[in-house]
Amino acid sequence: MQALPGFRDFLPSDCAARNYIFARWRDVARRCGFVEWDGPVLEPTDLYQKKSGPEIVTQLFNFTDKGEREVAMRPELTPTLARVVAAHEREFRKPLKWFSIGQFFRYEKQQRGRLREHFQLNCDIIGETALAADIELVALCIDIVRAFGFTEKDFVVRISDREFWTEFLRSQKVAPERWDEILQVIDKFGREPREKTTEKLGQLADPVLRILSEGGKSEKLDQLVDGLRARGLADFVDVDVRVVRGLAYYTGIVFEVFDRAGKFRAIAGGGRYDNLIEQLSDGAVSIPALGFAMGDVVLGELIRETASAREAMQKATAAEQKIDIYIVIAKEERRADALAQIQKLRDRGYRVDYPLAPDKVAKQFQTAEQLGAGIAILFGDEWPQVKVKTLATREEVLVLHDEIITRVANLL
Amino acid sequence: MQALPGFRDFLPSDCAARNYIFARWRDVARRCGFVEWDGPVLEPTDLYQKKSGPEIVTQLFNFTDKGEREVAMRPELTPTLARVVAAHEREFRKPLKWFSIGQFFRYEKQQRGRLREHFQLNCDIIGETALAADIELVALCIDIVRAFGFTEKDFVVRISDREFWTEFLRSQKVAPERWDEILQVIDKFGREPREKTTEKLGQLADPVLRILSEGGKSEKLDQLVDGLRARGLADFVDVDVRVVRGLAYYTGIVFEVFDRAGKFRAIAGGGRYDNLIEQLSDGAVSIPALGFAMGDVVLGELIRETASAREAMQKATAAEQKIDIYIVIAKEERRADALAQIQKLRDRGYRVDYPLAPDKVAKQFQTAEQLGAGIAILFGDEWPQVKVKTLATREEVLVLHDEIITRVANLL
Repeated sequence: MQALPGFRDFLPSDCAARNYIFARWRDVARRCGFVEWDGPVLEPTDLYQKKSGPEIVTQLFNFTDKGEREVAMRPELTPTLARVVAAHEREFRKPLKWFSIGQFFRYEKQQRGRLREHFQLNCDIIGETALAADIELVALCIDIVRAFGFTEKDFVVRISDREFWTEFLRSQKVAPERWDEILQVIDKFGREPREKTTEKLGQLADPVLRILSEGGKSEKLDQLVDGLRARGLADFVDVDVRVVRGLAYYTGIVFEVFDRAGKFRAIAGGGRYDNLIEQLSDGAVSIPALGFAMGDVVLGELIRETASAREAMQKATAAEQKIDIYIVIAKEERRADALAQIQKLRDRGYRVDYPLAPDKVAKQFQTAEQLGAGIAILFGDEWPQVKVKTLATREEVLVLHDEIITRVANLL
Repeated sequence: MQALPGFRDFLPSDCAARNYIFARWRDVARRCGFVEWDGPVLEPTDLYQKKSGPEIVTQLFNFTDKGEREVAMRPELTPTLARVVAAHEREFRKPLKWFSIGQFFRYEKQQRGRLREHFQLNCDIIGETALAADIELVALCIDIVRAFGFTEKDFVVRISDREFWTEFLRSQKVAPERWDEILQVIDKFGREPREKTTEKLGQLADPVLRILSEGGKSEKLDQLVDGLRARGLADFVDVDVRVVRGLAYYTGIVFEVFDRAGKFRAIAGGGRYDNLIEQLSDGAVSIPALGFAMGDVVLGELIRETASAREAMQKATAAEQKIDIYIVIAKEERRADALAQIQKLRDRGYRVDYPLAPDKVAKQFQTAEQLGAGIAILFGDEWPQVKVKTLATREEVLVLHDEIITRVANLL
């Protein structure tokens, strides 16, 4: 039997890589003053339809549960965030700076590398309209990618502003009902034949194409870049008004993170969605918000493709999986004595392993090396002394068994 | 809109408690030489029916996916473990010592405190028949509960041996086909009227009830307790042959962890299941195994009910959620200078927060206190100096902005 198509088993080395990513996500988010929260993996299907329309259902793992409820495995976190914030926002000082690490599910058509589950970091700031919040969010996103050893040569944050376009459309006297449709055309620019774009834009084709080729500017975008420059992060961003992000609910700054070489899909993406919580809470709570999401799959691919990042990960995961001490039981009569010391060492926080069944001494030392132990301690004929061996230097020293703890503290 | 019945939202304080539990689970498992792995949250429904029979389906969140596959949200980890071990065991040195932390789902009838999801730690040793493995597993289980500040006064591991009973049944010439049925009766002892037990046991009633009232003994159980005594853990265990655990697949030592006061359901439970991997892999791989699972719900209740454990958790989660430094921006003209320092401090690993919008200085200091900052740094009229204030002592010192890093390193 195999795992379902699109679902991953995480063998110890895969799980170590996953934990490595989670640890950096968590660490940087906390450094930036974000606190962790989470929601359920299963939610009412309605919650997602309300945000994304009925067509979302074709991409969901959704079903009717045994209580006749329409439920879905979560495809994204934002609707849950809106639900939770609407219910609890008054309990918290604003702005909220919240992050979450969890698994999400989409019934995607099977393609190479397309999974049906992935893990995602979500970071959101709720309750702040100031542009400083947008700067903080983009800076956090950059800092997180940097934490994996990537530099401005490896990745770029493409930043745009929905308002840049809505102001343009207003100046062109385009009816607001048509804005979404035109933004969708701009979103597809470069991925659709030029004639199709021109045809769809009609009278707007000339000015829009001019902006798209010459680039757009706005005071807000300048201020955003200035804020990032003050933090030394300007080299990580490009203002690029071609970025609009497909989703209708964005209301301001939007951004996407790509590898500079353009080999991969987006590493992360997000923006400001000031009206979404109001919409999803049926008007109960109106509160501005902005956020981004970063998945583990593209990020993981980029780490594995980039020598420096890959080596940093391998070094960290190897250190994380190493044990400190291996206990060699040379005489079975000493097993009880060994167990007593193992317990004491573990109680002090050392990672300690030992053979569960009798084994040759040479074999046990081999296991000690394979497990990455720094020290091996041999319980045998020397009792009440034991042999403490530093594996890197092969130095051995005889120690009385009740002095093991002190000796180990000096060696590790 | 609310979460589905039986599903939890994890607000920041709930999430901190969850992370506290996960961190201790992970830490102690690693100390004992266990490595982390994980499987998919969604698996073929068959995988669970194969282990537990068709009736398991009534308790599953199962459905037909868009590819016409019968799938289920995992109710437990062991079938996935068997699947993964059967596929990969040859890649690893035996014994495997694996642990996993994940979420599991059961469509339980709604009752107070009964959730439909919970998180569970699973620890398994695969590929070792020696009793030393059983001792190691029980010791790990004890060490994990101890890591939350519980002592032998708070909890007990009740240990039994399936073989004790199967040997008894063999000596009584009971046909093996009836063993499971009789073990089920013993499992229900004390929870069913005595007459019902007597009736079901028939001729076996007298000897079985004698064992249940006088207690059972065996050499293996004595050796198990001796092994735990060598580690100083004998006071945490009671041999209690009334424990058989309902599940048919156990083949040897079985154990359950309870609070001494008997207020809660089992904190953890497990045992040896030497034939299960062979059965689940259709005979492809025959390998002995043993393991236990511990959920977050009962453990969490016990922590909250026990003053010392609760205080340890509160202390740890408060420390975990604290920021190090709050930046007070007294003059908006200094925001860019502040951002530059914030970036530097965060890059050095400090947790730093600051106001995203202009705010009164007194308000900002209040926020600094609420966030648990050790230090506040004020950017204002003193520029190019800044005021560094140690919040606990209220001591203030003026520091040149390019000396902040050095000064902070001395203070934190």
